[in-house]
Amino acid sequence: RRHAIAVLPGDGVGPEVTRAALTVLDAAESRFDFTTGRTEVPLGADHYLERGELLTEGTVEQLRAHDAILFGAIGSPRVTPGVLERGIILALRRAMEQAINLRPVRLYPGVPTPIAGLTPERCDLVVVRENTEGAYVAQGSSVHVGTPAQVAVQESVNTWYAVERAVDFAYRLAAVRRGRLTLCHKTNVLVEAGKLWTAVMESVGERFPDVETDYVHVDAMCMHLPVSPERFDVVVTDNLFGDIVTDLGAVLQGGLGVAASGNLNIAGNGTSMFEPIHGSAPDIAGRGWANPAGACLSLAMMLGHLGEGEAAAGVEAATTAVLAGLPALAGEGMGASTQELGERIAGLLADG
Amino acid sequence: RRHAIAVLPGDGVGPEVTRAALTVLDAAESRFDFTTGRTEVPLGADHYLERGELLTEGTVEQLRAHDAILFGAIGSPRVTPGVLERGIILALRRAMEQAINLRPVRLYPGVPTPIAGLTPERCDLVVVRENTEGAYVAQGSSVHVGTPAQVAVQESVNTWYAVERAVDFAYRLAAVRRGRLTLCHKTNVLVEAGKLWTAVMESVGERFPDVETDYVHVDAMCMHLPVSPERFDVVVTDNLFGDIVTDLGAVLQGGLGVAASGNLNIAGNGTSMFEPIHGSAPDIAGRGWANPAGACLSLAMMLGHLGEGEAAAGVEAATTAVLAGLPALAGEGMGASTQELGERIAGLLADG
Ligand SMILES: CC(C)[C@H](C(=O)O)[C@@H](O)C(=O)O
Ligand SMILES: CC(C)[C@H](C(=O)O)[C@@H](O)C(=O)O
Repeated sequence: RRHAIAVLPGDGVGPEVTRAALTVLDAAESRFDFTTGRTEVPLGADHYLERGELLTEGTVEQLRAHDAILFGAIGSPRVTPGVLERGIILALRRAMEQAINLRPVRLYPGVPTPIAGLTPERCDLVVVRENTEGAYVAQGSSVHVGTPAQVAVQESVNTWYAVERAVDFAYRLAAVRRGRLTLCHKTNVLVEAGKLWTAVMESVGERFPDVETDYVHVDAMCMHLPVSPERFDVVVTDNLFGDIVTDLGAVLQGGLGVAASGNLNIAGNGTSMFEPIHGSAPDIAGRGWANPAGACLSLAMMLGHLGEGEAAAGVEAATTAVLAGLPALAGEGMGASTQELGERIAGLLADG
Repeated sequence: RRHAIAVLPGDGVGPEVTRAALTVLDAAESRFDFTTGRTEVPLGADHYLERGELLTEGTVEQLRAHDAILFGAIGSPRVTPGVLERGIILALRRAMEQAINLRPVRLYPGVPTPIAGLTPERCDLVVVRENTEGAYVAQGSSVHVGTPAQVAVQESVNTWYAVERAVDFAYRLAAVRRGRLTLCHKTNVLVEAGKLWTAVMESVGERFPDVETDYVHVDAMCMHLPVSPERFDVVVTDNLFGDIVTDLGAVLQGGLGVAASGNLNIAGNGTSMFEPIHGSAPDIAGRGWANPAGACLSLAMMLGHLGEGEAAAGVEAATTAVLAGLPALAGEGMGASTQELGERIAGLLADG
């Protein structure tokens, strides 16, 4: 079996964690008997500053010819905040119709969490984040800019089309998990969007009579998640709330260095992308202080997506085993560099 | 000294915690030598279901004649979700020009927190939440409702006027605290609103050269707040983000039962309102299981606002002393009912 993957290391610690993940991928290929063709795609701050280019049509077409994208991180203090994020990450999510941002929130055994008394059994949920619209249309208008009369209207656009595909995906996932789906929104205030999400939940729900549903306001979610994550199995939510609650979810897991995500095209008309949820962390770039676990667990998600289920399970097991042995989850205290940890995970995988 | 206060007990546990807080107020009056005239105002589910009335012009005028409003909680499963919240709480915040929602996030000594290793010294920040606009205008439009073509546009309206008064308040507060102000937003995605908030921060900042400022994305805030609350002194943020991060802040404090808030009119053209940040909790109403601390700490904020600084400090000290002795922070495990706890706090206050 051969898979064509595009590798986007990006900025800051992106290239470091991606390199570690590729070392793990090498080991996975030998052990589980498949190969990958890898195309490195130079998107990010350097490329932008040299060529003035963000995501181009040409790059989209190039990526489209691959079976999956492995993404590092993007963002740099040398570029106006938001430009790379919108011009590359968000543009990719939209151009590739990566309808779903799938973010498991799992505490792995042996990994220290800042939440007192939290155990792995109690922390195993998945957030299904709508990934193409909502406030992420990043549209609106301003009048009287630069005067005390300035008004900025920011829009969140929500379509039945996109909400339904996210909700449908979430129901399916809940049906093969613990059969419980929670809508997270703020329907008491965001009335128009709330009506749409609620109607879609009901409509799609008719096809899933065995999935139990409930609803939680996003503010209440942030209160419940740290102390009662066991209340949640699958959580479906809009783009902005998904962004917020999954960063909080990462805290439960031990920090951003551990959390993984998949940006999934579910219609078969684009390429899915797998990325650690941490950013480019320019302050620690180049030191080998980034934890490669998030990147390796994203690699595992990618392998699952490519149909390499055994390899996915192997990479996940090896990564979490190495994680569990770390004295700290990031920084110098990890006691080994990003690349050394990649090699350690690869080694475990090779030994079976 | 005499102060006219309006009391809005509301629904669910609202009347219970309010009664406890009024018991504490009685003790504060005797000890610190002031009196209050109290008008009980029957807003909430019962009133709405009997009379079909939410916040009326008449009630607004009645409330305007008071020096402060002590608010319990509103919300009931007998009313369509959102109706009471929008028709009473949000309507009041707007009608009374309660421009600022002030939410201290403090871990009090002896109070158990779910965050491992968190100490009171590290957890003392204040969130200044813009309280009248943003997504809370609750406006937008929907087309093709009930069809697969449905689209819902939800608007967030941000004015220089309201953002500036919130930011100015936050700078002033930071100047008398540790001199550090953080803007929490999502400027990389909410571009229009983000530009306005950023411009206001810079403009107002010119008048506060000694206040150090920084910026954090709301998602990153949810990651940092639980593990590094000491990074924050004063945080200023929009209505929706403020709603979210303060519920998370309450977790650090030991739960919603502890957290207090003030909805402040700062222009002198309306009445300020003080409310625990917990909701009406209909599931536990009537059992005496609600913690009155949030209501009592809101009372303390109200007393400070009325110029009764000594009484405010006294109520806060007595409340936190009683809190520190509780075996659990809510429910049967508290070992005493809501009202008994109110009496315990009142007793401490009386003994000085
Ligand atoms: C970088 C940023 C645009 C992005 C987002 O807001 O979605 C990030 O926070 C994420 O969660 O992947
Ligand atoms: C009840 C609700 C409308 C309200 C809000 O969203 O502001 C509450 O969550 C709060 O924080 O006071």
